[in-house]
Amino acid sequence: MTKPMAYLNSDNAHLVQEAKDVLERRFRDGWHAVGAALRLRSGEVVTGVHLEADIGRIAVCAEAIALGRAVTEIGSSDIETIVAVYHSADGKIRIVAPCGMCREMICDYAPSAVVLMPDADDEESWTPVPISDLLPGKYQRDRF
Amino acid sequence: MTKPMAYLNSDNAHLVQEAKDVLERRFRDGWHAVGAALRLRSGEVVTGVHLEADIGRIAVCAEAIALGRAVTEIGSSDIETIVAVYHSADGKIRIVAPCGMCREMICDYAPSAVVLMPDADDEESWTPVPISDLLPGKYQRDRF
Amino acid sequence: MTKPMAYLNSDNAHLVQEAKDVLERRFRDGWHAVGAALRLRSGEVVTGVHLEADIGRIAVCAEAIALGRAVTEIGSSDIETIVAVYHSADGKIRIVAPCGMCREMICDYAPSAVVLMPDADDEESWTPVPISDLLPGKYQRDRF
Amino acid sequence: MTKPMAYLNSDNAHLVQEAKDVLERRFRDGWHAVGAALRLRSGEVVTGVHLEADIGRIAVCAEAIALGRAVTEIGSSDIETIVAVYHSADGKIRIVAPCGMCREMICDYAPSAVVLMPDADDEESWTPVPISDLLPGKYQRDRF
Repeated sequence: MTKPMAYLNSDNAHLVQEAKDVLERRFRDGWHAVGAALRLRSGEVVTGVHLEADIGRIAVCAEAIALGRAVTEIGSSDIETIVAVYHSADGKIRIVAPCGMCREMICDYAPSAVVLMPDADDEESWTPVPISDLLPGKYQRDRF
Repeated sequence: MTKPMAYLNSDNAHLVQEAKDVLERRFRDGWHAVGAALRLRSGEVVTGVHLEADIGRIAVCAEAIALGRAVTEIGSSDIETIVAVYHSADGKIRIVAPCGMCREMICDYAPSAVVLMPDADDEESWTPVPISDLLPGKYQRDRF
Repeated sequence: MTKPMAYLNSDNAHLVQEAKDVLERRFRDGWHAVGAALRLRSGEVVTGVHLEADIGRIAVCAEAIALGRAVTEIGSSDIETIVAVYHSADGKIRIVAPCGMCREMICDYAPSAVVLMPDADDEESWTPVPISDLLPGKYQRDRF
Repeated sequence: MTKPMAYLNSDNAHLVQEAKDVLERRFRDGWHAVGAALRLRSGEVVTGVHLEADIGRIAVCAEAIALGRAVTEIGSSDIETIVAVYHSADGKIRIVAPCGMCREMICDYAPSAVVLMPDADDEESWTPVPISDLLPGKYQRDRF
């Protein structure tokens, strides 16, 4: 018997909550404004917060920190589902789409991962989207 | 009367050739292996080659150099069509898809630009694809 | 009474060993080839491994992952000492200098941090160097 | 007979002026706020403006655009002297130090280049500094 859909929804709600919780705990204006949570295929949940910098190019996204933690601590990069949240100027924490760099990184490490994307008209709700749909026709290294 | 389709095709073939030409002229193994050409909505064509670096994170893509040239020299970032080509290990120069960073940058500067994407089974031919299709659900700064 | 010098040396030897250990455990050719360890002023040691990517620009350095872990897990970025090690092509793990991006990030988060720099003629030994000496005249955001 | 020192000073004043001029022409708040000018060893002067982006990590520095132009247009990356200027919030254009990424890139392409660094107490004046002094102990690729 497969897991009922309701249970899966609840898993993802838990993942979103983990991302919100870590950002609420670590938010520092101008330094840490994005949080992320990922669930490995083995079930572990790993979180991360982004690192801003004086020079924007130096910054590191929350998804990359969460992935780096998974690799360093658990030895796995096998992401099943990932989500990011942002501390908006109005003080509310909302689900946000991953940037193009994070889409590349998620594709490289976990090509069948699913991203929880914010619904356009309601940033409290989300739709699970395969990462390959978010970077169609991705450039592949060493294809020839 | 609008431009006939054949002429438009020929324009894009010219753009691909410009990207190949600049890379053939400037290719240096380990330093410049990707070329790009963009056509502004005003008609000017601008090319660029990528800058590799000892540390991979420091590198800059060919599309970004072409866009930087357009802004610096012409004062416009109004890209109509853009294409990148790669000098493969087998010595052949092929059309390649833009990376996630370039997709972000093209979206930011020219949200209605078109990218010439390589056809999966024939890297000599291409399909024009709106940039918004290549980064669906792009994260937007300052939405709230 | 201040800590005797020998004890401090031993602390740093421990830090170097932590960086080597995490890299030995997590090394994967083409994906994780650099490790880092940092010691917070409060005494905790945090490690990280770097994340390579298909596109070099997407990669994230080991020092940034270690710092991201410290911020996410402990809520502190107060680095006292940091070191990175590299898995060379000859299979040996050696101390390496931080890249320019990591120097920026360390400066931003811990301007009085010390970096263990490899000695030019012996990559088994090191010299502690203040981060400010490694990025002299650093550009400051919002100075005016 | 070598060039008299006064003439060299005047060359550098010209270089600073070129960087200021291109930024004045191309400045766009939130998009292009840094300009750069470099002089190749062959004498040509090349300018560039930086490209900001929605996501800070996507941005490209002015020095990289100037270098990309030199490589694309002239086929040379042999920088003799380089300088960057920043459009401050108070509307004044000032000389600024290169970031850690640009220091890496300048070192990689022109290890004996000189950077015009702003004098601490007077951002109208500058001191020429060898790039190697700005990234001491730079990490070298493939040393082993």
